[in-house]
Amino acid sequence: MQQSVSGFSKFTKVDKINWLISNYFNENSNAKSILESYWNSNTKLQKLHDEFIENTISNFYMPFGIAPNFLINGKLYTIPMTIEESSVVAAASNAAKFWSTRGGFKTTVLSTTKIGHVHFMFEGDQDTLQSYFENIKPQLLEATKPLTQNMEKRGGGILDINLVDCTQKMIHYFQLEVTFETKDAMGANFINSCLEQIASTFEILTQNTSELNGNQPKVIMSILSNYVPDCVVRAEVSCNIEELTLEGHFTGQEFAEKFIQAVQIAEVEPYRAVTHNKGIMNGVDAVVIATGNDFRAVEAGVHAYAAKDGQYASLSHANLENDVFRFWMDIPLALGTVGGLTGLHPMVKLALEMLGNPSAPQLMEMVAVAGLAQNFAALRSLTTTGIQKGHMKMHLLNILNQIGANSTEKEQLIHHFKTNSVSHRAVVEALKNLRD
Amino acid sequence: MQQSVSGFSKFTKVDKINWLISNYFNENSNAKSILESYWNSNTKLQKLHDEFIENTISNFYMPFGIAPNFLINGKLYTIPMTIEESSVVAAASNAAKFWSTRGGFKTTVLSTTKIGHVHFMFEGDQDTLQSYFENIKPQLLEATKPLTQNMEKRGGGILDINLVDCTQKMIHYFQLEVTFETKDAMGANFINSCLEQIASTFEILTQNTSELNGNQPKVIMSILSNYVPDCVVRAEVSCNIEELTLEGHFTGQEFAEKFIQAVQIAEVEPYRAVTHNKGIMNGVDAVVIATGNDFRAVEAGVHAYAAKDGQYASLSHANLENDVFRFWMDIPLALGTVGGLTGLHPMVKLALEMLGNPSAPQLMEMVAVAGLAQNFAALRSLTTTGIQKGHMKMHLLNILNQIGANSTEKEQLIHHFKTNSVSHRAVVEALKNLRD
Repeated sequence: MQQSVSGFSKFTKVDKINWLISNYFNENSNAKSILESYWNSNTKLQKLHDEFIENTISNFYMPFGIAPNFLINGKLYTIPMTIEESSVVAAASNAAKFWSTRGGFKTTVLSTTKIGHVHFMFEGDQDTLQSYFENIKPQLLEATKPLTQNMEKRGGGILDINLVDCTQKMIHYFQLEVTFETKDAMGANFINSCLEQIASTFEILTQNTSELNGNQPKVIMSILSNYVPDCVVRAEVSCNIEELTLEGHFTGQEFAEKFIQAVQIAEVEPYRAVTHNKGIMNGVDAVVIATGNDFRAVEAGVHAYAAKDGQYASLSHANLENDVFRFWMDIPLALGTVGGLTGLHPMVKLALEMLGNPSAPQLMEMVAVAGLAQNFAALRSLTTTGIQKGHMKMHLLNILNQIGANSTEKEQLIHHFKTNSVSHRAVVEALKNLRD
Repeated sequence: MQQSVSGFSKFTKVDKINWLISNYFNENSNAKSILESYWNSNTKLQKLHDEFIENTISNFYMPFGIAPNFLINGKLYTIPMTIEESSVVAAASNAAKFWSTRGGFKTTVLSTTKIGHVHFMFEGDQDTLQSYFENIKPQLLEATKPLTQNMEKRGGGILDINLVDCTQKMIHYFQLEVTFETKDAMGANFINSCLEQIASTFEILTQNTSELNGNQPKVIMSILSNYVPDCVVRAEVSCNIEELTLEGHFTGQEFAEKFIQAVQIAEVEPYRAVTHNKGIMNGVDAVVIATGNDFRAVEAGVHAYAAKDGQYASLSHANLENDVFRFWMDIPLALGTVGGLTGLHPMVKLALEMLGNPSAPQLMEMVAVAGLAQNFAALRSLTTTGIQKGHMKMHLLNILNQIGANSTEKEQLIHHFKTNSVSHRAVVEALKNLRD
């Protein structure tokens, strides 16, 4: 058995790679040259990327694509998307083009409040704790001033602190629930620093008071929540059903009715809702990553929001009223356009510039639109041609690359599959036929 | 206002970039050189990456890091992680090292079944439909044979098809529910192709029968579900509480009790559960991306699973019995080690090789372990030093890069912040002091 390694994070990058090759690649130098082939030739730029995280040994390329023709609140955007799935940018572009001639996307930021908690245990009397909390609340706020003054200059800061009795959920469990406005910052570090300061002040004050009759609260942890049901944006499209007609295929009425049924299924059936929302997140995450935001935070908050009524359900909704088809969703998105990677990763800076250097609320709008567009494209495919036709067309180049088609063969086979249905097997056979 | 663009996907890469620069960067050639600075100098390799998706104009670098010392079922692994968050690889490595001397991680694949549905509407009699379905079930299976034969050779295929009456959820709504075993493939294309074939055969058969008394089922859509509660792996660690003692800080008993309380809070409080599970996903997604899998699919399935009992809750659990501390989670993971990007992206191939070219169930085990390790590290920080100390230490280099510290200054300030607490403001001031 191999030995564990000590002090690995202190190794140089080259030593880390040598250790890896020696222990896991049987000294195979090909692995080493693959890792090196992805380094940037600009060593200063590469060092910047190396220092984003610990133990970086190379760069993982994610395709950086763009989807043009997004008409949002009357203005045309090209949306940057970082995504590996072959059909996502294509679907986004198609949906954007479709809606650009039907009034475009409309968005409204409904709220921007974030939340965090000092979780603690307290075995004494609840009313006593409540009145003691009211007394020390100004001191708790005061203690955060050195942390909040910059944020306050930008119009944000701590909105409130409340004591929440959670003893119905778990014996002795209470929270200091703190709400925040973090303006253009996602605010995770700011919120956590404030919470830890509040917890520390709370512990010191409660250790030195007789008002709690010797019952000392015990802080378990202090942390922001990625559940942000009060940081929500709405995105929507609408048009007269006549505008949905596809000559020779379906009337607008037929399309709208089937589309709405598909959405209703996702509203009532969790097995469908999960994949329905996954499609939304294809669009959301692609923009979240391109703009340097944390997609795990967004994913967690969005899916928990989808389950908020007790059963996991569709985020988007559709209806037909007075011959007007409407399709919309409300989605919680805690995003930043300053801080974190936004000022650091050159491609992130470029992505934000492409979007006109938006404020965080404006970015919420664009991300939500990317999600709604993706959902529209997926539902339109599913309810008309089926999802596989478009998806496999997009995946065709990947299959051709994988089976080693040269560029002439690729050209001929792309032409061939314009009128034939794509599957891995069909592509292998078509290449074989071509070569024979 | 700008004009929308037509036929954009047919533009060459250079023309796409020129159009973008002209429309969104005010002809700024710096943006163009940034995009180009991220191209790989090997044009063939770059072309491969360009063709993964539509409208690729450059590569987005995600750091590719490695976390050594993961003892899993008695074998030592180094885990590849693709992640932008500064503390994730460091936390994973720390947790791995910690458990490597306490018996390591144990894992068990509990199930590997995936599921998909043909969603349809039917207005006739339900019993008539049920008996008709039983009659045609062999024909539905037979119709998929050309699609399933390769998968069957590998031991997978369609496990069953059932008719599900969903009329309690929505009037006239039924499903053909199809279960699959897809072996080492994630199987999305396979499953969707089978479902579309089943739907097509179902429509043809029902159009030509008198057994349904003229009531024609209307297929709405056919699609796999990313909700995979029957594709689940368990990961766990355990040790005697004495082994958790940190001399001079806490006894094993104290640590275990506080840690378990923190987990219990995440079991009962959704605001905490969301962030708790987000931490798990930091580890999960980093390996999912590095191994070429679809993180949106995994995220959706995992969070819906966390909400399966009606309230969003922690995925992981901990207890203390007979002085043995145990920490574990069951997590649904539909992953592939063949198909998709796995055979195509050179860094993905390298990541899989680093893991010993695992089967899909083996990869489920490693990914689950990365998630549990991450969760352990986060909870340990939260319940002892607080999350910010370690996080900001990891983020220190990012801040120093952002404010333009040179390498001598970086060295001195890293030393300075070994004994001082890191905040953006403190780093800015320390650099200023150093320069003065």
